[in-house]
Amino acid sequence: MADEAPFQLLHSELIQYIYKTTESGDREENGRNITRLENLGFRVGQGLIERLTKETARFKDELDVMKFICKDFWTSVFKKQIDNLRTNHQGIYVLQDNKFRLLSQLSAGKQYLDQAPKYLAFTCGLVRGALSNLGVKSIVTAEVSVMPACKTPSVTLIDQGNGSLCQCDEA
Amino acid sequence: MADEAPFQLLHSELIQYIYKTTESGDREENGRNITRLENLGFRVGQGLIERLTKETARFKDELDVMKFICKDFWTSVFKKQIDNLRTNHQGIYVLQDNKFRLLSQLSAGKQYLDQAPKYLAFTCGLVRGALSNLGVKSIVTAEVSVMPACKTPSVTLIDQGNGSLCQCDEA
Repeated sequence: MADEAPFQLLHSELIQYIYKTTESGDREENGRNITRLENLGFRVGQGLIERLTKETARFKDELDVMKFICKDFWTSVFKKQIDNLRTNHQGIYVLQDNKFRLLSQLSAGKQYLDQAPKYLAFTCGLVRGALSNLGVKSIVTAEVSVMPACKTPSVTLIDQGNGSLCQCDEA
Repeated sequence: MADEAPFQLLHSELIQYIYKTTESGDREENGRNITRLENLGFRVGQGLIERLTKETARFKDELDVMKFICKDFWTSVFKKQIDNLRTNHQGIYVLQDNKFRLLSQLSAGKQYLDQAPKYLAFTCGLVRGALSNLGVKSIVTAEVSVMPACKTPSVTLIDQGNGSLCQCDEA
């Protein structure tokens, strides 16, 4: 628990700092803050993936990259793997973390569900930054259905198609 | 290495964010940014020490508290202990970390020595926040003599006296 605490606490102070210094409360400013957090995450993701992949073999394909994100990358930040990875094999990937650490400090229930986006923006950027440095352009969005036990960030790679999602064999 | 990377990277992005959003470059603004970083660290330190001491026994005395900071607290953030703890037994403590992680990404040599304060402010706050939640009011300052291998943050507790520093038996 204490292992990821410094990161968690710093992340939550960062959110508070950004929101406090741009206090205006309107929806537009909130959107800009989300973007700020996303950009911060992007750069952290870039730096992190550089260190993590320094000595790994070249990735076979996109799915191979996504599996690395789900396992090694996610573990390095959140000390656990992604619980579930699904894909339509045409560029859409859905990563599900059933106990997302950056939300687990918030109360359960639907009460704070509207606060969730600001706790997800950094992580979306994190994944986008990591993928970007591996040569994969992507759009990363996240959603929360149940708090705090469940989270479904969905990673959409840019050249996406259609089709139903199916379970990946691993991760 | 990768273990503390997310925290390190987030810390360095935070510094960049704060300096970028308050771009003016004058000395006064720099001072305010240092204070901002110190305050952020203070709150992270408070949160962290709460989690770390949840199940520890009551501390015997101030030195006991300082040893906890040098070992458990420092390890939880920087994945290593403080290398050297000295005190004058009258309220002054000097903690030395010979391989301070938040500086180890900067170039060695004296070239960037003037950049060091902004990389130390957060950590000063971190220690002050932790001590504060343990009921110890303190002034925490830091200095760097050699980069990046050496760092001497000196923790001054508020009711300090005089006298020469001597080595503590442990830590």
